Amino acid sequence: MKIVYSLIIIASLWSCNEKMIDKNPAPGKKVQVQNTDTQDKAAILKVMKDQEIAWSNNDLEGFMQGYIKSDSLAFYGKSGLTKGWQQTLDNYKKGYPTKQHSGTLTFIVNDISKIEANSYWVMGEYFLSREVGDAKGVFLIIFKKIDGAWKIVADMSCG
Amino acid sequence: MKIVYSLIIIASLWSCNEKMIDKNPAPGKKVQVQNTDTQDKAAILKVMKDQEIAWSNNDLEGFMQGYIKSDSLAFYGKSGLTKGWQQTLDNYKKGYPTKQHSGTLTFIVNDISKIEANSYWVMGEYFLSREVGDAKGVFLIIFKKIDGAWKIVADMSCG
Repeated sequence: MKIVYSLIIIASLWSCNEKMIDKNPAPGKKVQVQNTDTQDKAAILKVMKDQEIAWSNNDLEGFMQGYIKSDSLAFYGKSGLTKGWQQTLDNYKKGYPTKQHSGTLTFIVNDISKIEANSYWVMGEYFLSREVGDAKGVFLIIFKKIDGAWKIVADMSCG
Repeated sequence: MKIVYSLIIIASLWSCNEKMIDKNPAPGKKVQVQNTDTQDKAAILKVMKDQEIAWSNNDLEGFMQGYIKSDSLAFYGKSGLTKGWQQTLDNYKKGYPTKQHSGTLTFIVNDISKIEANSYWVMGEYFLSREVGDAKGVFLIIFKKIDGAWKIVADMSCG
């Protein structure tokens, strides 16, 4: 749970930091935000926080905003490979038609590391708290910065 | 099995290509090998082919040459996170002390995609053929080009 709290704190700090930058621009000069690793990680954790909230409201389209909206998205697990944003969403809609099915989602992040300048991996655990029975598993997801936003480009999850 | 054959063919072509480059250098000129995506993928599949051979000889150190020799290596699964090349090797040595334990390893590659200029992910399946009982599972590994060689920097496997 320590990591969940850290996630919330980092996301809050990131949000504060953004506001500070907006409020104090250097006069007559374009503000260049240096993307430090810390800022990158906070932005990625913010995407995952938003995904937790969307999923827990059975807002599967909202949850899928964390993924690259492209046919290149690769979603992998024991049941095989799914390619594409729309197909992944369709599968989720079939599997989790109501809030009773989707339940409340919690991520635990165990590792977040840089790959190259605009890519990171995240290793973690997911927990679904549901009346119909809890579910849990582990995942490895790859984030890439696309047009200034961090998106999941590949996901492997095992229940 | 189609992909296994493709892997062998691509690895062979890559090997031929290397020889061609070695044999016909432009006189008095440094040969610059343009790393196309095809060449990158072939080089990565060659690393995995070498891993299959090393593992199947119970040469676990040889198998581990496919991984970045660094404390940053992240190895993840249902049993948790292992950090570092040496720790990962030590775990393998404990789990697979003899050829009878390690058996014969075969990879099936289901997806290989570029992340950034010097990084790719590979999604696939592993099969261990053993007298003590077969084993299999799926994996997502991240390759990064380090000092000209493709190395696995992150690995998630689920049995």
